[in-house]
Amino acid sequence: MQLISPTDSMFLVGESREHPFHVGSLQLFRPPEGLGIEFIRDAYETMLKHDDVQPTFRKHPAFFGGLTNLAWTVDDEVELDYHVRRSALPSPGKIRDLLELTGRLHGSLLDRHRPLWETHLIEGLEDGRFAVYTKLHHSLIDGVSALKLMQRALTTDPADTDMKVPWDLPPRRGGKPDSGGSLLGSIGGAAESLVGVAPATWAFAKKALYEQQLTLPFRAPKTMFNVKIGGARRVAAQSWPLARIRKVKEASDTTVNDVVLAMCAGALRLYLDEQDALPDTPLVAMVPVNLRSEKDADKGGNMVGTILCNLATDVADPAARLAEISRSMRENKEVFAQLPQTQQLALSAVLAGGIVLGLLPGFASTAPPPFNIVISNVPGGREPMYWNGARLDGNYPLSIALDGQAVNITLANNGDNLDFGLVGCRRSVPHLQRLLTHLETSLSDLEKAVVS
Amino acid sequence: MQLISPTDSMFLVGESREHPFHVGSLQLFRPPEGLGIEFIRDAYETMLKHDDVQPTFRKHPAFFGGLTNLAWTVDDEVELDYHVRRSALPSPGKIRDLLELTGRLHGSLLDRHRPLWETHLIEGLEDGRFAVYTKLHHSLIDGVSALKLMQRALTTDPADTDMKVPWDLPPRRGGKPDSGGSLLGSIGGAAESLVGVAPATWAFAKKALYEQQLTLPFRAPKTMFNVKIGGARRVAAQSWPLARIRKVKEASDTTVNDVVLAMCAGALRLYLDEQDALPDTPLVAMVPVNLRSEKDADKGGNMVGTILCNLATDVADPAARLAEISRSMRENKEVFAQLPQTQQLALSAVLAGGIVLGLLPGFASTAPPPFNIVISNVPGGREPMYWNGARLDGNYPLSIALDGQAVNITLANNGDNLDFGLVGCRRSVPHLQRLLTHLETSLSDLEKAVVS
Repeated sequence: MQLISPTDSMFLVGESREHPFHVGSLQLFRPPEGLGIEFIRDAYETMLKHDDVQPTFRKHPAFFGGLTNLAWTVDDEVELDYHVRRSALPSPGKIRDLLELTGRLHGSLLDRHRPLWETHLIEGLEDGRFAVYTKLHHSLIDGVSALKLMQRALTTDPADTDMKVPWDLPPRRGGKPDSGGSLLGSIGGAAESLVGVAPATWAFAKKALYEQQLTLPFRAPKTMFNVKIGGARRVAAQSWPLARIRKVKEASDTTVNDVVLAMCAGALRLYLDEQDALPDTPLVAMVPVNLRSEKDADKGGNMVGTILCNLATDVADPAARLAEISRSMRENKEVFAQLPQTQQLALSAVLAGGIVLGLLPGFASTAPPPFNIVISNVPGGREPMYWNGARLDGNYPLSIALDGQAVNITLANNGDNLDFGLVGCRRSVPHLQRLLTHLETSLSDLEKAVVS
Repeated sequence: MQLISPTDSMFLVGESREHPFHVGSLQLFRPPEGLGIEFIRDAYETMLKHDDVQPTFRKHPAFFGGLTNLAWTVDDEVELDYHVRRSALPSPGKIRDLLELTGRLHGSLLDRHRPLWETHLIEGLEDGRFAVYTKLHHSLIDGVSALKLMQRALTTDPADTDMKVPWDLPPRRGGKPDSGGSLLGSIGGAAESLVGVAPATWAFAKKALYEQQLTLPFRAPKTMFNVKIGGARRVAAQSWPLARIRKVKEASDTTVNDVVLAMCAGALRLYLDEQDALPDTPLVAMVPVNLRSEKDADKGGNMVGTILCNLATDVADPAARLAEISRSMRENKEVFAQLPQTQQLALSAVLAGGIVLGLLPGFASTAPPPFNIVISNVPGGREPMYWNGARLDGNYPLSIALDGQAVNITLANNGDNLDFGLVGCRRSVPHLQRLLTHLETSLSDLEKAVVS
């Protein structure tokens, strides 16, 4: 019997048909030269042979005299062909068809009677590539850890055909387990116990959030993204060369993350304008950032900051928008650094991952919202990666939409690319795919404006 | 504002992740000669153009100050490409792959925020055929009415390419709407109001059930099918020529339904034996039957009876088993006919469709169970049917598994065939597909024993 921590329990209690709390990842692979459908079928058979399933992948909530969400059950037997599935795309098998299927899979709840994960091996892309969509419940593992775990099943060696799968990876040598529960584990044990003593934490976090908000010359406007959501999802995904973003960064004396935020800001501006829903005041993003480089590296402890950023969506000029975003990030990092330790911790604990906020009683309904969108740039691989000889072309993190936060943008490094994964409520965010076009337009506008 | 009737409301209140209350149908089509994937793609585009959506397909529960299940909302706009979806099978695209996908689709909940139905156009069968899986919530329409409605979208004319779809069929001329709510409407308005005054109805129904049970020389044994179930489903489907069943019927002086029940009984015996779980006493089936032919036709009123049948699974000899089943059906029809009208009505209301029982407080946990399995033979088409020029090869009704009833067998006429649809809890009923093999063995054993 393993008790569920109060924070992890929150992800189970708060989950409903409209608010699935699982994180996802969509990996796009190119099979080895000359291999096609047999490769995928063989891969599936090999996956099923990996049946030494690690405890994280055998856990689900126990039922306890009608009560649940109190303790974990760790199943001895896992029906692997339930969790690992083959799917196919209808013709013509375009990326659009892949995203449609992924949206359906990302929008459906995991079965609480079984370990809380699924992996779908998807064939039928017209270009011969295949995809792997994986979903893991947030109570088992946070998005960043999930992505790291998925990475560990890959290799930099294209000739290595000794397939690894996330669910039976041996624990890391001398390291921590891949999930100590939620992402809070990675922030520090203090946060975990702090959150355990809610509602004090909420009060601290709220205070910290409003203190940051005070530094903005405005409040976040109410937008079409900050509404109650339905249960269906759309996802969108695309890769951009890191080199393009670096060039803008170097020409503008900003950071990669600043440029990414400006790229998103421009896209959101175009999208909202198209929907005739662009507010007069700028959108505010919640941006998890790594603060370690800004502090003494050996100071350790709290690494993750949660920064409110002025997205300057009211500014038409791309260069001016980027400058405003960069200034906002710089200033709010300073404000964050000056917050009392308990508030920093509470804010990080509550906001990192960007998904707990909606569970805060009364928070989703406070108008105006504290921020309009979460944009997370999470660590990924720097080198080209392979799985069973298949090259990883794209690795798109898919996060969580929730009440008041109908769209989420998460991106990760993958070799020379930045891979963007967008998740939106299907009802409140029509034509999510257009955000991809707008992201490209926004980046090329930045290039024109800044790189000469 | 349209109030939800107490009985229909029951299907909404009682639904949970483990107990989806939708009925399904899997139709298997052969495209017109020489046409392939373009036919399917064109069909999909045409389906989406049928956007004059009838009220039944625009209904879902309203939210009413936090309360639901009280009133219907009828949406003005329906996002048709959410409800009508294209799917594909992984290679090699065998019927097994189709059933795997159908099982997944049948096991997932409908979104309460949208009209409670989905239709999936499924391609990728290796033989070039395609399938349509449709699910409809039981609170909108019962299984029999759903099947009738699906039939109305078909035609006997192979040259008729004026496609019809169930969701925008005009109401029947002079007839009742396709769904007056649940199946209770078709039993008679009295049942509806009677059920409204539960728990008196439950008491009547229980009494009627136990009265029938008294006529059996035993009680239904506890079997592996009569357990709590999980949320995942498997489905199995296969067609048998009606002519084979008729031959057995004629040689044994029984009815088609008797032979069907004997065929199922033999299959269940083989399956349970294989699982080392065959009880010493015979299984009892709950069998909805049409009683009109047994009474004066113009007497009208109550047509549907719910008969408990001794499946004689303890009898090794197929001919003796069939005789026992036939005798049991005959006797219990008489018992049923002699029940007071209120009890008949209550029992029909509660049991027809076979799925309400699990919602009866305390019923699922009574040991032994009143019956082990529901076997329904529902009316289907007598002639070969076509849809947009594609021939309907199979039309498999898929019903509901619930606590205490982990497997369900429903079958329907389709031209010269009887099409069997089996639904089972994925956890409690392993290797559901084997029941298909056993059904064939059981039928051919009957042929050997009876037809000379």
